Amino acid sequence: MENEKALKNLLDFLKHPSVSATGEGVRDTALWLKDFMRDLGINAWIEETPGHPVVYGEANNGGDKTLLVYNHYDVQPVDPLNEWKYDPFSATVKDNYIYARGASDNKGTLMARLMAFSRYKGKLNFKFVFEGEEEIGSINLHHFVDRNKDRLKADAVIMEGAGLDTKGRPMIVLGVKGLVYVEIRVRTGERDVHSSNAPIVYNPVWRLVEILNSIYDGEKVKIKGFYDEIEPISKDVEELLDKYDVDVEELRKSLGAYALKHKERKEVVKALFTEPTCNIDGIYSGYIGKGSKTIVPSHVYVKMDFRLVPKQDPKKIFNELVEHVKRIDPKVEIIDMGLEKPVRTSPKTKVARAMISSAKEVYKVEPVVIPNSAGTQPMGIFYDLGIDEIVSAIGAGTSSSNAHAPNENITVDNYYKAIEHALKFYEEFERIK
Amino acid sequence: MENEKALKNLLDFLKHPSVSATGEGVRDTALWLKDFMRDLGINAWIEETPGHPVVYGEANNGGDKTLLVYNHYDVQPVDPLNEWKYDPFSATVKDNYIYARGASDNKGTLMARLMAFSRYKGKLNFKFVFEGEEEIGSINLHHFVDRNKDRLKADAVIMEGAGLDTKGRPMIVLGVKGLVYVEIRVRTGERDVHSSNAPIVYNPVWRLVEILNSIYDGEKVKIKGFYDEIEPISKDVEELLDKYDVDVEELRKSLGAYALKHKERKEVVKALFTEPTCNIDGIYSGYIGKGSKTIVPSHVYVKMDFRLVPKQDPKKIFNELVEHVKRIDPKVEIIDMGLEKPVRTSPKTKVARAMISSAKEVYKVEPVVIPNSAGTQPMGIFYDLGIDEIVSAIGAGTSSSNAHAPNENITVDNYYKAIEHALKFYEEFERIK
Repeated sequence: MENEKALKNLLDFLKHPSVSATGEGVRDTALWLKDFMRDLGINAWIEETPGHPVVYGEANNGGDKTLLVYNHYDVQPVDPLNEWKYDPFSATVKDNYIYARGASDNKGTLMARLMAFSRYKGKLNFKFVFEGEEEIGSINLHHFVDRNKDRLKADAVIMEGAGLDTKGRPMIVLGVKGLVYVEIRVRTGERDVHSSNAPIVYNPVWRLVEILNSIYDGEKVKIKGFYDEIEPISKDVEELLDKYDVDVEELRKSLGAYALKHKERKEVVKALFTEPTCNIDGIYSGYIGKGSKTIVPSHVYVKMDFRLVPKQDPKKIFNELVEHVKRIDPKVEIIDMGLEKPVRTSPKTKVARAMISSAKEVYKVEPVVIPNSAGTQPMGIFYDLGIDEIVSAIGAGTSSSNAHAPNENITVDNYYKAIEHALKFYEEFERIK
Repeated sequence: MENEKALKNLLDFLKHPSVSATGEGVRDTALWLKDFMRDLGINAWIEETPGHPVVYGEANNGGDKTLLVYNHYDVQPVDPLNEWKYDPFSATVKDNYIYARGASDNKGTLMARLMAFSRYKGKLNFKFVFEGEEEIGSINLHHFVDRNKDRLKADAVIMEGAGLDTKGRPMIVLGVKGLVYVEIRVRTGERDVHSSNAPIVYNPVWRLVEILNSIYDGEKVKIKGFYDEIEPISKDVEELLDKYDVDVEELRKSLGAYALKHKERKEVVKALFTEPTCNIDGIYSGYIGKGSKTIVPSHVYVKMDFRLVPKQDPKKIFNELVEHVKRIDPKVEIIDMGLEKPVRTSPKTKVARAMISSAKEVYKVEPVVIPNSAGTQPMGIFYDLGIDEIVSAIGAGTSSSNAHAPNENITVDNYYKAIEHALKFYEEFERIK
């Protein structure tokens, strides 16, 4: 009965389109969510940003501890629409599956946490930050956070949930890698010219090759101080890595990679979770069509991401990168396309211990605990508020949930389990010393 | 009267579309040209190739010397069509200008040579090779040449004309740089993956950066033996370079380049005509749209051209390049997209002397003589027949002729001058000892 109502609430939520990339339905969904939270007894309101609004809510239950719940109510675009079995905003339930854009990422998780809140009888205080721009890079979240620093004080944060692994085990991710995303642009002329001029005009690609080669040698990043502030791997983290089981050959196949850089499970796991990276996401210059065209291109650009590990500082590294490149050629442009701090929460913190024990109790298996994701979430923005207990867990999605793809789905059972887990976690977190 | 007829013949020719890239009108034009040549008393026929046909013709006037005349009857595509003032195949004459696709490149020159032939009364023998694929890289010319080695014997070759410079002086180009055009492809997986996997999967762009950096250091090509066979610059060539006047600042502006590699006229000229190059024409990998996307791309490709100077051997250099790259990574693909030999005809040869003196006589100015172009034409294919007197000259085009662009044109006067020059050249070449 309680579950049926929880399902109905989720379906209502999923029927509200909220595509942040296009703006479709975003404000309507925010208003609906705010009203829905008020009906649950949460003191909720809309917080404007230069982009889509944040739906913010507070519930004071009179306890000593406060939990900040972060989720996003926006979703990815639905194209290619013709590959969907059901209308992506019809929220169709079929054979125990809920099909809808946002079912897994992450309206299911958001609603599960609210449903758990509505069942919760304890003294834990809540703050809810539901943003509307996660799928477009959380570009304005900092506006809201910056002007609400005092209001957002909390003992711990739970981020968008990590879901279940291929074996159905709940994943608990204790941190994130940081990020420096840049575009580097080199321009040597107003237009492409015939390549018979190659002896006398500069080719921007050769200049870029020089720059790239100076940044990374295939093994190490050569930017000044890049590795200096990396936190040594603690015993706790090492234990988590030792426990993390992965079949290297299966992983290689699932990535479609011809080879991996490492052969041993231990090396793969260590690299994935504890090594910073310097990656090229895309590069373009000149003629890239069929056949041949003989030109010296006028410009080239490359998109790069650096993933950072605790305690690398994205601002410092971005500045050093700019210095580094400007020393080679002061006219080269380096554009900051996003900086995020790395975060790692100790498995000994209250939030981690409560999350692990509640997961065990609800799912009846050992959860998969990862010291930090190999990717990035905007945890750093909360870390900067002085909160050092942040985890990503409690999600209804799995690797077959088709997040960001057609036919996004979760099972009804996984949704109910996520409610159960959230409730159990609230209770244990309140209790834990 | 004679000129009026010559103009009518050119306009007829220009009204025949012959776009080799699409095939539009190519065979019709070849058949028309063959018949036209027969009407002039040339023994002409169609020579099939795996692509568009060659129109070949012979005229034996009973002398000791034979001139091989090379031109192409195909033209570039016409897009963007809406930028043309007149239909590109209407061959509109307006204020002394002939507007048509191919007017300058190079139906005007081809017809001028035929018109000069029709007026010629001497004993010089002629062979005409008019190909239909120059604008798509002369990809099948060698099929025709290979099976007609004996038939094509000649004392000299005149190539597609070099036209007039910005001051109206006829240009005589005594050779060409050679070419090695390649595409290098690196693939490390079946598909792009999320860049959180960067610690464990190989990024093909980093591999390519390593390869590119090993090929060229910004000044020198590092492929084994690349510079070994370069012919020292002769006194004759040096004299030509000394005479070649160019305003470096004007050249820089005309190229739209922010800076040139050299500041002095002498250095610019030396680089342009005597230095081999290693140029990147285009490069592509991964995400190149707006904003950021975090992926490790599965593949990258780069298009490169090397311009060669006498006596660098394109086949040898291509093979060394393959060896070089395979030593770094045997799985990298290197695709041969065109090899051409460098050629340089001595200014002391009969063909050069006859071309220079006839140009002086017709244009009443000192012609601009260049030891070889900074670019490439398929001269090497004739050089390989044992003909070492090859020049590119007699053209009706100028730098305002818009070759390969909308509103391609020549002036009626420049067309008539080209006929006059060709005729004078035939006469002098027959006479010269």
